[in-house]
Amino acid sequence: MKKIMNEAGNIVEEMLKGLELSDPSLVCFPEKRVIARREKASKVGLCTAGGSGHEPAHAGYVGMGMLDAAVAGNIFASPSPDQMLKGIEEANAGKGVLMILKNYTGDLMNFSMAKELAEMEGITVDCVVVKDDVAVPDSTYSAGRRGIAGTVLIHKIAGARAAKGASLKEVKETAQKAIDRIRTMGMSMTACTLPGLEKPGFTLGEEEIEIGMGIHGEPGIEKTGMKTSKELAEILLGKILADYDYNGSEAAMLVNGLGGTPLMELYVLAGDAAKVLKEKGITLSRVYVGNYMTSLDMAGCSISLLKLDEELKELLDAPANTPGFKTFG
Amino acid sequence: MKKIMNEAGNIVEEMLKGLELSDPSLVCFPEKRVIARREKASKVGLCTAGGSGHEPAHAGYVGMGMLDAAVAGNIFASPSPDQMLKGIEEANAGKGVLMILKNYTGDLMNFSMAKELAEMEGITVDCVVVKDDVAVPDSTYSAGRRGIAGTVLIHKIAGARAAKGASLKEVKETAQKAIDRIRTMGMSMTACTLPGLEKPGFTLGEEEIEIGMGIHGEPGIEKTGMKTSKELAEILLGKILADYDYNGSEAAMLVNGLGGTPLMELYVLAGDAAKVLKEKGITLSRVYVGNYMTSLDMAGCSISLLKLDEELKELLDAPANTPGFKTFG
Repeated sequence: MKKIMNEAGNIVEEMLKGLELSDPSLVCFPEKRVIARREKASKVGLCTAGGSGHEPAHAGYVGMGMLDAAVAGNIFASPSPDQMLKGIEEANAGKGVLMILKNYTGDLMNFSMAKELAEMEGITVDCVVVKDDVAVPDSTYSAGRRGIAGTVLIHKIAGARAAKGASLKEVKETAQKAIDRIRTMGMSMTACTLPGLEKPGFTLGEEEIEIGMGIHGEPGIEKTGMKTSKELAEILLGKILADYDYNGSEAAMLVNGLGGTPLMELYVLAGDAAKVLKEKGITLSRVYVGNYMTSLDMAGCSISLLKLDEELKELLDAPANTPGFKTFG
Repeated sequence: MKKIMNEAGNIVEEMLKGLELSDPSLVCFPEKRVIARREKASKVGLCTAGGSGHEPAHAGYVGMGMLDAAVAGNIFASPSPDQMLKGIEEANAGKGVLMILKNYTGDLMNFSMAKELAEMEGITVDCVVVKDDVAVPDSTYSAGRRGIAGTVLIHKIAGARAAKGASLKEVKETAQKAIDRIRTMGMSMTACTLPGLEKPGFTLGEEEIEIGMGIHGEPGIEKTGMKTSKELAEILLGKILADYDYNGSEAAMLVNGLGGTPLMELYVLAGDAAKVLKEKGITLSRVYVGNYMTSLDMAGCSISLLKLDEELKELLDAPANTPGFKTFG
């Protein structure tokens, strides 16, 4: 498998250094694989932690209006408690730190240890756990639903709330409200190959896709034949709308690419998804399309739907300036 | 080949409609495949035209601080004079229109007809042609060097100059200055597959890459074995530095992905390229990393290097708010 890299074992460190190079407002701590804002803002700190391979998630969402620090594990592997502690320390400006996690057992376990270590240093730490993937009730690496692309909007919303000077309790409440209102459903067309490996861990047939596959290649709901964009919009949104009541409401939609799917196709899907939602009486007032939470070179996509209220709309639109997400406010 | 689409013949139109949906400041004219700013700014208009399949180029660079209109051809095919005329009309606010083209014969020919048509309507039109690809002197679709990823920085620079109220002549001069100072060199690891086709038009071996391949799969300089990121940085920059004198100067670098290469790998390459440039005494003061000018699902990358002066730095940093490029200024 051809990858632009030097040694597979150094790829995460080298990636973080490259990210730092591209954004002078960020600082990289390579030995702990932490990216943080160079200048601490006097507010509740926001941190995230998780495996690498999902770029720009999550290091690419550190910056003004979003996260204060991100902790990068090995590819598809949880960072250690020690690494997470460094992320919490970097996010901390004396007003407490909220950790935003995706629901994977390793991340949660290591965080609980990191939290203890941080509290011994006198840092107040709390966390929220994103479980937006409606595909399967439990999965290979999670008890309960997995956290996937919807997490990016949680970073945005929590980040904006913290930037407005809210307390740790308030930021957590708003983040949790958004988590409660967001659902995601995805599908994959190819596997992905980890750096250093010759081949992907599994394959899909020439005309085969997997509905509900996880962002680490975990099993989904079913393997089926290729569908049109219209059919995919109906399948993915069908599952989301059956799970949560969006009727008559305003929503934000994130059409996310898994890395190997051209932006052109994501825009086509966004158009078809908008039509489905219009028919259901759901007003789509914010639409995000792009590669926000990837799985290396996997081809595929997901749709996330967030039920909005005035607060969430305002927070989505508030200014943010990170490598992976910018809004002018 | 699995693609998220409905009918291949409609994919460009549907893509543009999806783009419009994601950014309310844009308006789509699907019958002409033109994307334009919804509200005309009173300034020199900037337009571009070219084949689709390079998203976010170019429709994704329409918006505040960059382009006023973009004209999308079929995939890897030139838009017609009639389409280009519509783009020029939409970009026109009475102060003349500058068309930014990449150097491909079809685009240039069709533009010369569109220019005549626009002038018959009383619109003043001029153009600049980007020829940044140092790989080959002539190519399948071009007499002279091809225009590739460096074009995005020309959009940015010309856009900022126009936004500051410069005249058509001044905007053209600045764009031409930037064109004269930018060089790009790329490499590909896989072919790409056009929507509606079963397979790519050619293939590369399991461990084979092509140095200098064009963004439509045109032949490059040589096929060779896979290289490390460090070696690639040396090969690509070696060709660029041999072509133009950057010695002792300040430069902006764009590390561009061709679509199928994970962002992680682009950041690794950016780090290695920065080291090569440091050794050569070139100060890297702006670094852009991402999928700016793609070739559908092709895996590969390019490096562009722009020799800066104070004016160009200021224009790169000036505010821009487009789907594919945002700077806060």
